[in-house]
Amino acid sequence: MQRRVVLASRPHGIPQGEHFRIEEAAVPELRTGEFLVRNQFLSVEPAMRGWVNAAANYSDPVPVGGVMRSFAAGVVVASRHPGYAEGDAVMGMLGWQEYAVSDGSGIRRKVRETDLPLSLSLGVLGINGVTAYFALTEAGEPRPGDTVVVSTAAGSVGSAAGQIAKMMGCRTVGIAGGAQKTALCRDFFGFDAAVDYKSADFAGALAAALPQGVDVYYDNTGGAVSDAVLPRINKGARIVICGTASVASWEPWPSGPRVERHLLNKAARMQGFLVWDYEHRYEEAVAKLAAWVRDGRLKVREEVLQGLEAAPDAIAGLYRGENLGKRVIRLHD
Amino acid sequence: MQRRVVLASRPHGIPQGEHFRIEEAAVPELRTGEFLVRNQFLSVEPAMRGWVNAAANYSDPVPVGGVMRSFAAGVVVASRHPGYAEGDAVMGMLGWQEYAVSDGSGIRRKVRETDLPLSLSLGVLGINGVTAYFALTEAGEPRPGDTVVVSTAAGSVGSAAGQIAKMMGCRTVGIAGGAQKTALCRDFFGFDAAVDYKSADFAGALAAALPQGVDVYYDNTGGAVSDAVLPRINKGARIVICGTASVASWEPWPSGPRVERHLLNKAARMQGFLVWDYEHRYEEAVAKLAAWVRDGRLKVREEVLQGLEAAPDAIAGLYRGENLGKRVIRLHD
Repeated sequence: MQRRVVLASRPHGIPQGEHFRIEEAAVPELRTGEFLVRNQFLSVEPAMRGWVNAAANYSDPVPVGGVMRSFAAGVVVASRHPGYAEGDAVMGMLGWQEYAVSDGSGIRRKVRETDLPLSLSLGVLGINGVTAYFALTEAGEPRPGDTVVVSTAAGSVGSAAGQIAKMMGCRTVGIAGGAQKTALCRDFFGFDAAVDYKSADFAGALAAALPQGVDVYYDNTGGAVSDAVLPRINKGARIVICGTASVASWEPWPSGPRVERHLLNKAARMQGFLVWDYEHRYEEAVAKLAAWVRDGRLKVREEVLQGLEAAPDAIAGLYRGENLGKRVIRLHD
Repeated sequence: MQRRVVLASRPHGIPQGEHFRIEEAAVPELRTGEFLVRNQFLSVEPAMRGWVNAAANYSDPVPVGGVMRSFAAGVVVASRHPGYAEGDAVMGMLGWQEYAVSDGSGIRRKVRETDLPLSLSLGVLGINGVTAYFALTEAGEPRPGDTVVVSTAAGSVGSAAGQIAKMMGCRTVGIAGGAQKTALCRDFFGFDAAVDYKSADFAGALAAALPQGVDVYYDNTGGAVSDAVLPRINKGARIVICGTASVASWEPWPSGPRVERHLLNKAARMQGFLVWDYEHRYEEAVAKLAAWVRDGRLKVREEVLQGLEAAPDAIAGLYRGENLGKRVIRLHD
């Protein structure tokens, strides 16, 4: 028997602990072509909100009663698949559960960076880091001397994006919520400036941090944070939309200040970014990110929750802004 | 003496006839390095709204009491400038006046297409056509088989964009206001479909015209028209922002449905376009456009108003949607 987290009911907006249920289930027998993964770390990320909502998104919603979809990292403990051997470390869509049976289709990659903690494959060496790398370099196209603004700058994606921009010779300004996170941006992740969007004078503080405007805006939040950044963009600015974490619900669809005029006046570009479009270049990014982690140029902060019991409330917690660093759930050592 | 149109007072929003005044003034003596142009056609275009508004835009506002800034086309009638000779046809920022003295700095180009009407240099062979050409091909990047939606499709820019997209192998859908303009789109400019944004069931008609969604949206309006198009974009769609004609005022800044989520879900791009960024390639576009006009592949419709008296109300008339085709003012034959 194993334990797993299933979707108990469909949330409107952000999924709370009550929308999930922990249940016991048998570990299925392996058929030919399958293998069994013992999950060591489960991922928790903002995008998972979209995976449980009914509205059409870029993936089908998790069915009520189904195991919560998630990335996870673990080790193969039994295999009837020629491509996977006992002991292989893997990362993929393995779900919020202790054990996952796979035919390989949900596996994103074998984890080759065995000198680094396995949990990193869910963060800076996973979708988060790969997203930060390609969204910044390919869609953001930062040039030396550019001012790069990053929202959710203390988070896994944002902190990586900011550090990579800095390595590329840019001035980096992080936006985060609260004094603790802005301090983390400045003192740990090395942003040149950090602005607290929860402060009373956010707009004023942002203006003060942007004496030369904004050339690249790496946006993970949308909403009011973006509304404050848009009037400060420079000619030819690139805005990369990687997430909309600040918007609690898209039903009903929210309104905000129109962006057309900002984009027109500045001949600026707003580009939605989906990391799946860079699937074929995934290993290229991981190799670079791993090298930067090893030589200390890319700093990583994780928040490790303990045990499957932490999972149901973990997404809601992200939206409460309580995590510092990439949130993962450790199931065992 | 000559007559000219000056800005009498600064409008909020769209300039009406009352914001202008026709006055008489002396034609200045030419100094060395100057030449005198007798204007034959004055241009009237939506962007001129922005030129008289106080808010910072992509050009400084016309001062109250100053001659209304505009493109115009005319012929050099006297010259003390080595680069311009009597009889040269020129187009440039010559203003709403009968005669303009220039040192060459406001001249956009000498008009070489003397086999075609001079007024075309203000429309399809001017900023309008050049904008349509580069905004569509460079920012829109249409591919054969794409569905290309164009707003203000019966206008000078929109009709050119639609026809060029059609030549590039795209399915073209025009959005225009009223039965007369949509008929013009279909029957004269050759759009595959045309939708009336003033109709009661605009959203339904738009959906019916877009069975395969939208790959390129060439947007001259912003506002409610764009709000109806955005939910229909395809993966990787390109939205080109060329104008915001449907938004009557940006003071106070209007709100509308947020676009972040559309762009993210579809990894789509929204790009502001300023034709000035393609200054160095202007003649390349004019040469192509002129060739298409000559061989009948690019159809042109002009609305010619007669005499300087028509000027003061002419911009407001554009926003009332009363013109069919590029609006110009003829001062003499």
